[in-house]
Amino acid sequence: MKRTLKSILAVVVVVATLISCAPRQIDRTIRIQSPSRPAGQKDVIGLTNEPMDVVRIGFVGLGMRGADAVNRYTYVPGIEIKAVCDLENEKVERVQQNLVARNFPEAAGYGGEEESWKQLCDRDDIDLVYICTDWKHHTPIALYAMEHGKHVAIEVPAAQSMKEIWDLINASEKTRKHCIMLENCCYDFFELTALEMSRQGVFGELIHGQGSYHHNLDPYWDAYWNNWRLDFNQEHRGDVYPTHGLGPVCQAFNIHRGDRLKTLVAMDTDPFNGPKHVESHTGQPCENFENGDVTNTLLRTEKGKTILIQHDVMTPRPYDRMYQLVGTDGYAGKYPVQQICVREEALNDQEVKYDQLGGERVLMGAELQEMMSRYRSPILTPELEELAKHVGGHGGMDFIMDYRLIYCMRKGLPLDMDVYDLAEWCCLGELGRISIENGNAPVEIPDFTRGAWDKVDGFHYAL
Amino acid sequence: MKRTLKSILAVVVVVATLISCAPRQIDRTIRIQSPSRPAGQKDVIGLTNEPMDVVRIGFVGLGMRGADAVNRYTYVPGIEIKAVCDLENEKVERVQQNLVARNFPEAAGYGGEEESWKQLCDRDDIDLVYICTDWKHHTPIALYAMEHGKHVAIEVPAAQSMKEIWDLINASEKTRKHCIMLENCCYDFFELTALEMSRQGVFGELIHGQGSYHHNLDPYWDAYWNNWRLDFNQEHRGDVYPTHGLGPVCQAFNIHRGDRLKTLVAMDTDPFNGPKHVESHTGQPCENFENGDVTNTLLRTEKGKTILIQHDVMTPRPYDRMYQLVGTDGYAGKYPVQQICVREEALNDQEVKYDQLGGERVLMGAELQEMMSRYRSPILTPELEELAKHVGGHGGMDFIMDYRLIYCMRKGLPLDMDVYDLAEWCCLGELGRISIENGNAPVEIPDFTRGAWDKVDGFHYAL
Repeated sequence: MKRTLKSILAVVVVVATLISCAPRQIDRTIRIQSPSRPAGQKDVIGLTNEPMDVVRIGFVGLGMRGADAVNRYTYVPGIEIKAVCDLENEKVERVQQNLVARNFPEAAGYGGEEESWKQLCDRDDIDLVYICTDWKHHTPIALYAMEHGKHVAIEVPAAQSMKEIWDLINASEKTRKHCIMLENCCYDFFELTALEMSRQGVFGELIHGQGSYHHNLDPYWDAYWNNWRLDFNQEHRGDVYPTHGLGPVCQAFNIHRGDRLKTLVAMDTDPFNGPKHVESHTGQPCENFENGDVTNTLLRTEKGKTILIQHDVMTPRPYDRMYQLVGTDGYAGKYPVQQICVREEALNDQEVKYDQLGGERVLMGAELQEMMSRYRSPILTPELEELAKHVGGHGGMDFIMDYRLIYCMRKGLPLDMDVYDLAEWCCLGELGRISIENGNAPVEIPDFTRGAWDKVDGFHYAL
Repeated sequence: MKRTLKSILAVVVVVATLISCAPRQIDRTIRIQSPSRPAGQKDVIGLTNEPMDVVRIGFVGLGMRGADAVNRYTYVPGIEIKAVCDLENEKVERVQQNLVARNFPEAAGYGGEEESWKQLCDRDDIDLVYICTDWKHHTPIALYAMEHGKHVAIEVPAAQSMKEIWDLINASEKTRKHCIMLENCCYDFFELTALEMSRQGVFGELIHGQGSYHHNLDPYWDAYWNNWRLDFNQEHRGDVYPTHGLGPVCQAFNIHRGDRLKTLVAMDTDPFNGPKHVESHTGQPCENFENGDVTNTLLRTEKGKTILIQHDVMTPRPYDRMYQLVGTDGYAGKYPVQQICVREEALNDQEVKYDQLGGERVLMGAELQEMMSRYRSPILTPELEELAKHVGGHGGMDFIMDYRLIYCMRKGLPLDMDVYDLAEWCCLGELGRISIENGNAPVEIPDFTRGAWDKVDGFHYAL
């Protein structure tokens, strides 16, 4: 009997092994757990606030981006700058001086301690907390601010992990406060116009998009307080700065407005230059460096479109956001030169017919400018464009972003971007790392709206 | 006892299930079986033929590419055109007329039957069979020719499946005959120069490369005999035409000359335009279409570098081979405008030091031409350049390719490309399909040299 038992056991083990090892079509996609929505909580698609004449703002983080932002806001109609905060008191002081120079009253100043920003968030005369700190403080400050009744606008990338992403989503859904990421590249002139052309069908149906952040940061590492940006690259694999490339493409692709990101695959190079940057900028030997010099991320949507995103801040190459929209009937590309491409028939204002597809026609220079002038973004009034170019901030796009945020809040309109955009654009960091650490395996992208990605029919601005 | 047995069985099954389903770090890479090398067979790295004064050639396939090739060869020194073959006798006739017009003797003509090419291969006065048929005939003709003692040169892509790739490798290794793929883009002026700059270290160590075939083929489908090209796209998923993008990058990356392709991931869009092309060009409804309009393939090498390859022949967009080399110290990009980028110090002929990395400097136009003129490809003599531009063929690159092939064969030198290049550049078709059909899973790329990928130290031309 013992031998029978052993024989049976042996057979069972062999069969189980065969089943688990058979080269059948197996599911190789990594699926990570997503939190379900807490009871009583609803999505924030189309979220609005009560209209307000004046938006009262507190700024946290007054380094490079923060000091610029405060200055820009002195040109935005309908705001009050109530408070400013930075770890370093000198930065608070410098911003106050600028406010006075701009004929603004001094704001309440906070600083000097790691958690000075809590005092700013605790005030009861602030509507919006505008966060421009280092990346690691974005989410903690935003969460605290929302919990204390404030809307939040956060520099990119707003969240550095899936936990932070879900925390922000839950906080926005629970508190019904705006949680917007300050993705300025959505407001650059070419991207604004290409989005409008896409919305009007000039490119047919969009099927592939591209974006990147190619920016040799070597001359700039020292500008980041306490070396935080290089440190972050040293500690994290995956695309740690994907939003400038991904944001404008996702708007054109109606992501969570009729389509959604579904699958991600990431592949990076070894860190060739990364360790050299550390050694050069810290003077210390570099034992370990996580981030590959070049990181590629491929995304596929529910509706069968693809998006390619790249990150490279380590090599000497031309600045490039690689913005590209590829459609069934046309194409837009921004770098290194602007190009629009359509079918010959479309140019002649004829209807495009598939029994007679024509060759492509590439527009550049004056011809391109002429065509794009016919598809002005509805948010870009001539007055706003002029003011934006005067105030500046990456050629004006920063100001247009600020202006739109305040315009919508004052009128009580839905903002151009919501917390799900933030989530989709930031998830490439941790999900990319997971893909890379699993031999470039596909990773499922969660539906951050938890069921509401198809509720809105296409991206549009509230006007 | 029966109950005890059942309990034990249940426990075993549960344990086996738990082991096979546990969310541990599992290997998600697809590994397909590769044939081992037949006994007595050796690799063909550095393969040479006996020097010969004159290379006697037979051409098979006299359509678009074939007729052009025969014409170009009338300008190549040291050749005889012994025979020409096409399924359609009119094409044979037209080529004969051109030979006469170019003061060449008429060649033996074959045609009219599906296997007329066998008669050409059976001749004993031919050294090289030059194959320009539709894709499906490339490998069968090449195999037959090698088995009948001929060297072969095959249009791109030479092989359409892993079986064809291994068949060609085994045939070349067994017969000791050259089996070269006619990748003309390796001989375009910018790529030739960038390769030389890379070999001389201008870009530091290359870490990322790109290439593509973006070419709106809609106006051209009808030019392919019996609609074979559109049919092929209809029947095959994966990058079916990857070699123009991948070839020049692999040469610069020293693939199987010190590094090797190791992992592949592919992701395509749905076929949006493909079915419309079929309906427009055949007049028939399209029930099924396999190839995505845009196919992205990411490759990672043994030494931690990445390569991105794209394919899109379905949408109206600018022609683009997306050629790009990204290095630790510099960059070259060809489309849509040529750019070279290096560190400031390098431009001043100073040594690049990592304790003092500088900003990047982008060269375009005249400045770029001046720099590139200092890195002339060693194969490109001024006489050859002038002749190539006169003869033409995609601006001269086709002629340079032909010239080099004959130059090396006459002198008995190793060719610029071997059957392993062919294999590496063609494998994206089937391996990409496997990745896509498995949810964009990573696929292991076989070492086609079967152990010899590290034998040669860097790409170089035999001169």
